[in-house]
Amino acid sequence: MNTLKDLQLLIEEAVNNLSYPTDPAELYDPITYILSVGGKRMRPALLLMACDLFGGDVRAAVQPALAIEVFHNFTLVHDDIMDNAPLRRGKVTVHEKWNPNVAILSGDVMLVEAYKLIMQVEDSILRDVLKIFSNTAVGVCEGQQLDMNFEQVEHVAIEAYLNMIKLKTAVLLGGALKIGALIGGASKADADLLCTFGEQLGTAFQLQDDILDVYGDPEKFGKQVGGDIISNKKTYLLIKALELAGSNEIEELNRWINRDDFDAAEKVKAVTNIYNQLNIRMYAEQAMQDFANKAFEALDQISLSNDRKQYLRDFADGLMIREK
Amino acid sequence: MNTLKDLQLLIEEAVNNLSYPTDPAELYDPITYILSVGGKRMRPALLLMACDLFGGDVRAAVQPALAIEVFHNFTLVHDDIMDNAPLRRGKVTVHEKWNPNVAILSGDVMLVEAYKLIMQVEDSILRDVLKIFSNTAVGVCEGQQLDMNFEQVEHVAIEAYLNMIKLKTAVLLGGALKIGALIGGASKADADLLCTFGEQLGTAFQLQDDILDVYGDPEKFGKQVGGDIISNKKTYLLIKALELAGSNEIEELNRWINRDDFDAAEKVKAVTNIYNQLNIRMYAEQAMQDFANKAFEALDQISLSNDRKQYLRDFADGLMIREK
Repeated sequence: MNTLKDLQLLIEEAVNNLSYPTDPAELYDPITYILSVGGKRMRPALLLMACDLFGGDVRAAVQPALAIEVFHNFTLVHDDIMDNAPLRRGKVTVHEKWNPNVAILSGDVMLVEAYKLIMQVEDSILRDVLKIFSNTAVGVCEGQQLDMNFEQVEHVAIEAYLNMIKLKTAVLLGGALKIGALIGGASKADADLLCTFGEQLGTAFQLQDDILDVYGDPEKFGKQVGGDIISNKKTYLLIKALELAGSNEIEELNRWINRDDFDAAEKVKAVTNIYNQLNIRMYAEQAMQDFANKAFEALDQISLSNDRKQYLRDFADGLMIREK
Repeated sequence: MNTLKDLQLLIEEAVNNLSYPTDPAELYDPITYILSVGGKRMRPALLLMACDLFGGDVRAAVQPALAIEVFHNFTLVHDDIMDNAPLRRGKVTVHEKWNPNVAILSGDVMLVEAYKLIMQVEDSILRDVLKIFSNTAVGVCEGQQLDMNFEQVEHVAIEAYLNMIKLKTAVLLGGALKIGALIGGASKADADLLCTFGEQLGTAFQLQDDILDVYGDPEKFGKQVGGDIISNKKTYLLIKALELAGSNEIEELNRWINRDDFDAAEKVKAVTNIYNQLNIRMYAEQAMQDFANKAFEALDQISLSNDRKQYLRDFADGLMIREK
């Protein structure tokens, strides 16, 4: 088995070797730009890892893995327009560096290029891979739409939130693993199980992100602690708090949510206090653990040797930051 | 052979039977909306026609034909954002009816849905069909980018303009015909020839559109005569006029192009006069005829019976409005 780091490097190299026409520059330069801005190449590496797990040749999986990376970056380019985001990974976003029209159209081409890459698999699995890829893509778009919808409404149910984060982030991890498994020669049943593993683990990982935003060690977390609180982001924590809060706490939460003028540190402290009173961290960690457990249950059923399963468990453990 | 009208009706019926999930409504309602706004369903009908020409079962080609229609409508939704267009076929555009974010994301899903439809072909041609579809899609995006670029520059060369209209409008006609031919059982050589027929004829048709904008019978044309002149659109006529004009005519053309405040009828009359002095209509008709001839040359080489070739010739003649 290759290490995940090796696989990430393999992807990095392959991304650097991708080349697009020079003309029209406004269409193709943004593709090279956004792909060069980096990221951990985790999603395509997962595809290679899945292929490797089932004894496949990872080199045969590089182009489909790139499809996952190009697709992911397409979603970033379009999401950044919709979210009006000035920066992505510390660099200027495509629609800011060029303009929204360039970002729309180069994003569109990236989606087509992703299809050109994903179809570079053997005939025997071509149709299945295409179906998985298309269903994954639709899921990711649905997740983004739900995420935008949630910003506009006052009340979001926990189940709706969990469905949204599954679609927006977890299905692509599941899809990458499933395609990689099929390329590696896995049975459809095993590919499905690995997909479930990825989706459940991805959802757990997103819940961890919600928790770390409030309770993370600022040095380890690498983001501003309380950023979600400051921006009123409807995370698992806020949604659960609004669900469990009594009338006093609801009133105080809403006061902070509706204030335009506030001291950021004071708001983070006050809202965190409410979370603490309501035991929100425990609920969130429980939910996270439930998803992680479902991931491990799927993993247990896969027809792989114990050392390969252990590799996947170690990988999952590596994603989950143990605080304390 | 089915008549083109029958094939258009078959598509119309199939479009009406397309159904998408209800949730999230912002993602799927715009798809149903834009598809219901109509249009002549010419592109998907061409796919069916090509299948029919080679003796294929048109019912087996309906889903891939819908892929062409969904793809075409995806480009309309995104182009309308980029062009800031308030209306499409007399109805409010998606980004105006909802908002630009909804238009971006539902457009993205349409592109994925188009892939889901285009892959509904037999295994033996699946990979070829996907390649043709992807290359066509990339070409259309390149055409749109070039079109936007041309708006920003003073000088556009005739060759660059012809390349742009080929990409923006003609490659999709060629791609639809080529895919339909393959579904119908045509050889790759015949499919290529039919593709060339479509691309050349499509380019001729676009040139005719440029000519009719200035010289068309307002009652037959169905658009405001001189609309391109009023909006300074860089058509074949304007580009050719700027190429052939002497210094006096260039000065007068530029004066009209740069005036913000003008009487529309006066501008149309003045610019048309310059076109007349420079014999622009003749050049444009000659260029159009050259493309039509190339279309017919490709047609002559296709291995089809004479009556089928005549069907295609009649179809081409039907597209070309004979003015006098």
